[in-house]
Amino acid sequence: MTTEEKIGQLIQPFGWQAYNHIDGKIKLTDAFKEAVAKGAVGALYGTLRADPWTGVTLETGLSPAEGAEAVNEIQRYAIENSRLGIPFLIGEECSHGHMAIGGTVYPVPLVIGSSWNVELYRDMCRAVAQETRAQGGAVTYSPVLDVVRDPRWGRTEECFGEDPHLIGELAVAAVEGMQGESLASEDSVAVTLKHYVAYGSSEGGRNAGPVHMGWRELLEVDLHPFRKAVEAGAASIMPAYNEIDGVPCTVNKKLLDDILVGEWGFDGMIITDCGAIDMLAAGHDVAEDGQEAAARSLEAGIDMEMSGEMFGKHLLKAHQEGKLKEAALDRAARRVLTLKFRLGLFERPYADAARAGRVIGSEEHRALARQLAAEGVVLLKNEGAALPLKAEECGVIAVIGPNADNGYNQLGDYTSPQPAGRVATVLAGLQAKFADEPERVLYAPGCRVRGEDREGFPLALETAAKADTVVMVVGGSSARDFGEGTIDLRTGASVVTGDSWNDMDCGEGIDRLSLRLSGVQLELIQEVRKLGKKLIVVYINGRPIAEPWIDEHADAILEAWYPGQEGGHAIADLLLGDANPSGRLTISLPKHVGQLPVYYNGKRSRGKRYLETDSKPQYPFGYGLSYTQYQYSNMKVSAGVIGPDGEATVTVDVTNAGERAGSEVVQLYISDKASAYTRPERELKGFKKLELAPGETKTVSFKVGVAELEYIGEGYKRVVEPGVFKILVGGSSVDTLEAELVVKEEAGA
Amino acid sequence: MTTEEKIGQLIQPFGWQAYNHIDGKIKLTDAFKEAVAKGAVGALYGTLRADPWTGVTLETGLSPAEGAEAVNEIQRYAIENSRLGIPFLIGEECSHGHMAIGGTVYPVPLVIGSSWNVELYRDMCRAVAQETRAQGGAVTYSPVLDVVRDPRWGRTEECFGEDPHLIGELAVAAVEGMQGESLASEDSVAVTLKHYVAYGSSEGGRNAGPVHMGWRELLEVDLHPFRKAVEAGAASIMPAYNEIDGVPCTVNKKLLDDILVGEWGFDGMIITDCGAIDMLAAGHDVAEDGQEAAARSLEAGIDMEMSGEMFGKHLLKAHQEGKLKEAALDRAARRVLTLKFRLGLFERPYADAARAGRVIGSEEHRALARQLAAEGVVLLKNEGAALPLKAEECGVIAVIGPNADNGYNQLGDYTSPQPAGRVATVLAGLQAKFADEPERVLYAPGCRVRGEDREGFPLALETAAKADTVVMVVGGSSARDFGEGTIDLRTGASVVTGDSWNDMDCGEGIDRLSLRLSGVQLELIQEVRKLGKKLIVVYINGRPIAEPWIDEHADAILEAWYPGQEGGHAIADLLLGDANPSGRLTISLPKHVGQLPVYYNGKRSRGKRYLETDSKPQYPFGYGLSYTQYQYSNMKVSAGVIGPDGEATVTVDVTNAGERAGSEVVQLYISDKASAYTRPERELKGFKKLELAPGETKTVSFKVGVAELEYIGEGYKRVVEPGVFKILVGGSSVDTLEAELVVKEEAGA
Repeated sequence: MTTEEKIGQLIQPFGWQAYNHIDGKIKLTDAFKEAVAKGAVGALYGTLRADPWTGVTLETGLSPAEGAEAVNEIQRYAIENSRLGIPFLIGEECSHGHMAIGGTVYPVPLVIGSSWNVELYRDMCRAVAQETRAQGGAVTYSPVLDVVRDPRWGRTEECFGEDPHLIGELAVAAVEGMQGESLASEDSVAVTLKHYVAYGSSEGGRNAGPVHMGWRELLEVDLHPFRKAVEAGAASIMPAYNEIDGVPCTVNKKLLDDILVGEWGFDGMIITDCGAIDMLAAGHDVAEDGQEAAARSLEAGIDMEMSGEMFGKHLLKAHQEGKLKEAALDRAARRVLTLKFRLGLFERPYADAARAGRVIGSEEHRALARQLAAEGVVLLKNEGAALPLKAEECGVIAVIGPNADNGYNQLGDYTSPQPAGRVATVLAGLQAKFADEPERVLYAPGCRVRGEDREGFPLALETAAKADTVVMVVGGSSARDFGEGTIDLRTGASVVTGDSWNDMDCGEGIDRLSLRLSGVQLELIQEVRKLGKKLIVVYINGRPIAEPWIDEHADAILEAWYPGQEGGHAIADLLLGDANPSGRLTISLPKHVGQLPVYYNGKRSRGKRYLETDSKPQYPFGYGLSYTQYQYSNMKVSAGVIGPDGEATVTVDVTNAGERAGSEVVQLYISDKASAYTRPERELKGFKKLELAPGETKTVSFKVGVAELEYIGEGYKRVVEPGVFKILVGGSSVDTLEAELVVKEEAGA
Repeated sequence: MTTEEKIGQLIQPFGWQAYNHIDGKIKLTDAFKEAVAKGAVGALYGTLRADPWTGVTLETGLSPAEGAEAVNEIQRYAIENSRLGIPFLIGEECSHGHMAIGGTVYPVPLVIGSSWNVELYRDMCRAVAQETRAQGGAVTYSPVLDVVRDPRWGRTEECFGEDPHLIGELAVAAVEGMQGESLASEDSVAVTLKHYVAYGSSEGGRNAGPVHMGWRELLEVDLHPFRKAVEAGAASIMPAYNEIDGVPCTVNKKLLDDILVGEWGFDGMIITDCGAIDMLAAGHDVAEDGQEAAARSLEAGIDMEMSGEMFGKHLLKAHQEGKLKEAALDRAARRVLTLKFRLGLFERPYADAARAGRVIGSEEHRALARQLAAEGVVLLKNEGAALPLKAEECGVIAVIGPNADNGYNQLGDYTSPQPAGRVATVLAGLQAKFADEPERVLYAPGCRVRGEDREGFPLALETAAKADTVVMVVGGSSARDFGEGTIDLRTGASVVTGDSWNDMDCGEGIDRLSLRLSGVQLELIQEVRKLGKKLIVVYINGRPIAEPWIDEHADAILEAWYPGQEGGHAIADLLLGDANPSGRLTISLPKHVGQLPVYYNGKRSRGKRYLETDSKPQYPFGYGLSYTQYQYSNMKVSAGVIGPDGEATVTVDVTNAGERAGSEVVQLYISDKASAYTRPERELKGFKKLELAPGETKTVSFKVGVAELEYIGEGYKRVVEPGVFKILVGGSSVDTLEAELVVKEEAGA
């Protein structure tokens, strides 16, 4: 390969700019053809990505089958018109569904985390991979494995939560689900683990802000899920935008080379985040110019530049000027080509368009999306068994609020435009429940997510006054401006106003300094509350909300995060008791933004109070109510004393003591009584989601051994230290049974 | 020395418990005598400390001369009744004045920082040392060199600010001022640098919470002032309570041994914070029990345990059981004894009581306290030249607010009880100005700092209505409960109610989750504002206040922090133009708690916005208005290009373009355009406080060389990297002239 051809393999421009879609036909651009002819490009980013950022709309976008054909056309051109005929690597966004027109939109990762259902997530990943690969997408930019430490951050929704163990388990499921048995399968795509690393700890919750963290914490917390996913065979990884203690991740040799490749044996591809190399020279300022930035990142371990121009502009010149090591270039090209081989692209470069039409957005996938949403929604409060509503007794239901019937607002960031009616809102979900009595479900938007507009208040109050039960659907929005549609607050009708209207208060780049509800939503709820109706609050949003007034005055609160396209059905199922809430928080919900951080697994010395209140969250990690009650009893540890390499079995009986079937998330935590280096108060080390019929008891067992007891000790090595451990099992991080386990050197095998 | 005698040298119990003060006489306790006889104690903490914590009151406390005599009595007993006759090391709190009855109470360190007057602070330290040593105190527990990163922290007031360079300069002044030419001087005491290290970066601003920080930042930011002070000859240092990345500072060998002793050559004493060894076994949990905690900390480098019982209880047994290295014990005893020798205690163990009576609280020291306060108060806003008030035109002044006439509330934490009338409040300061026209100064407290009590509102509004100008003195309080005195809100009279009343919203252990004014203070101001009078707001408080309403509606705002016993005179001088404000912020004042952190010297990648507003502070670092205007011009750099060991001279002309004499704080920042590791946006590297007559121009010059250009580069070493630097000079961190300086390898000597 020539140097230019090698460099070409490392370049991944925006795929949607490679072609035009005119009169139903795909026309490749001249720039694209020219690059192919020179061997100057080997991959594309977001060829089918549709959203305001790409400018691809429902009207201009491609159907599933058309998309597959377009990708095939690109692929064919690349193979037939380049000297070496190397197929392209097509990368697509798949955080919670393939981000192309028609792709199934699953709940956001925060819902997936809250479901604590690893199996179900693995199934979802398999389904997402199937939809993506059916259109020729071979590598994704997920899963997001960031450990959230500051929910002011707008990307909180894209993460599973705040616990490294839980994220690690889901990370493995993502690798298994997306990559399958073989990357070459027509149902498999390569994952890209991101954002490597500590992106969820940015200063002030500001996106891509610097991270203040030492190596011990990095190794113990943020690197853990990545290590698990690498051990599971992840094929690609993306360094984060942020710096850690003065070193941008994009050029962090210790992270990219020593740890990832050296210690963990990663043999996949390392790809930058979008524009990350530019940032080295303009933002981080660790390079004098683009050329230094490009050369430095390649040598630090980067193989491919995602959708930037630094490699294309600078690497060849740097090479000619002797500023680039040949070995680094070879390594990068080799890693990219290896991935293409592993994906079977040389053998089977083309997708089956008919198949794409069948699998994308299939009924089966919709059912999966609905189940995930139903399992991920968390019941935070249920005063006087306000929920479930009894269909025969609850009378007229008023569904009120800006997220009651706004399809986009419940999808979260990284989603494509949707045709009308494809997204089941809460209103639609409840209407479906009362299809035979449509008069029992009323609706008014009341207000927008943001802004001071109160012109919808009268209709909302009038509507609520006619009802027996009010379901307020409020929260946030990560929906980018998808065009001209809006809702007339005075009538509740969807209208085309011609105004561009953006209600976003969350999503990438939308960080907040408050965790209160945006706009006049609280005020709307307070006005409605005065009517004295039963008040159910449903949050649809992307980061924790701290509204003590609602915590105090609502009869019930459901936290649904962004529950995806089937969210309204799932929520209706929960509201009416057709499903029993089994979601549990994977992120601690604070009382006030000024309490941050409040993550549960902090150090014991972290301080218990502020002048105004304690430092505890309003709702703790692992917490979530259901319509039945679970009782824990008979906790046993198989051995009181084990050696450092030993293993004990912990068993506990869990009983469904209520009248309804349900699923309980049984959680196992450990707490080391004393250790050479400080450890968190308690750490999740196991969990099982368990279905229980009314009255049923099941015995749950967990292994507690090296993986559960080890931590980062002397010399930054993982070690099991002798001593006394508390083993805690229960239904949340603050409600546990307890037993002791002693690790003794002399008890070793 | 026997092992017990060596251990005795490492022990420092509470001094106020060594004796009783009965009928004007000092009676040593039996426990103390017994310990002396066994050689089981060699130092005392806080022998004269008076505050609610020690239980020493104005009534039970000792006068300056009595205090000196009491310490002499203790010293004499120790020398005459122990086998070796080693004098005691008497340690006292001196953060902003010797914390004994009668000691001069200077402004808190945040005011000192804001004065940017290093000479004046050095004088203050000399004066504090004189007062302390006059009573036999030989070692202090100051200066506090913590770099504040989160003002939720209640100890923010005890720190100089957020900039390591400024803190470093003040640290050197503290060493020079306190320790003088010789520690053996009757005017000298040993400093104790604290809290080593990063105590100002605790998680969530919660006192002693864990610190998340890497080594590069530690070396560059938090360790810098300590290094400067050690290089200046500091004789003692105190590890912080907090852990950093899993290692409590009290057992951090890398900090205590490798860096402090090994790299910096520190040869003084290392003393724990109060109870810090206990925390190792109960809190940090890095020791199984007290014995392990005591042994581990001694071996990590601790020489003396401040006021805890772990060394006394456990070291002897640990030694007998062979769990303690003899070398560590010898090292600790040697360091303590060396300090006693350096202090001249063996030659001159006794204080001169008559001298104590003369120097403690002297007129000269009071004048110094007043000058520091006048130079440290910061004028934040001055709409339409609302200030200074013209005595002949301002009519009747109403002084209103909970801190208008509350002496304790303006002293800050770590202060002793004060007799009535000793503290000049703002009311007293203004009354002194209008001594001939007492009817021109009215007063009403209005409300308390905390609590919902509005019963003082009517009097406050009535009083304000009678006035032409209203000076609202609001803020916070770090005054611990000094007894039964309070203020009757309805009448403004000081009364003895019999109720214990505590208004604290700041100080050690009082961390907050909001930066708003406590209680109903804002409401009181808003009510007063409706009267339409000229509204001057004076903040007396210990941490940044974020009250946008006041920023918008007050005519002028003075931030006085806790200005000490002469604060009211200083503020009156400023209000009436007898002094011209020259204080400049050393801590960025945020707009909202949700913006934190907002320190000025963050990394360039830290993010510029939140959804609600930008991420900039309301008032930036280095900012402060005056009654005149300063103009900067003619900035020059002596050499455009220098070598890495070179030096350039930067000059700039500063002109007082207004009508009043004043002092300007000329600030020099550097900004490295590109570097191997990331650097802050800009960093203070020099400053000069400059007096200028109206119309006068002075040329200020700064050296820019290795100390200003170096940073922590490759291998965690200080290095000057070739490249382009921006040199910025101006009157605040955001308002600067700019020039370039190029560092080139080949330009080197």
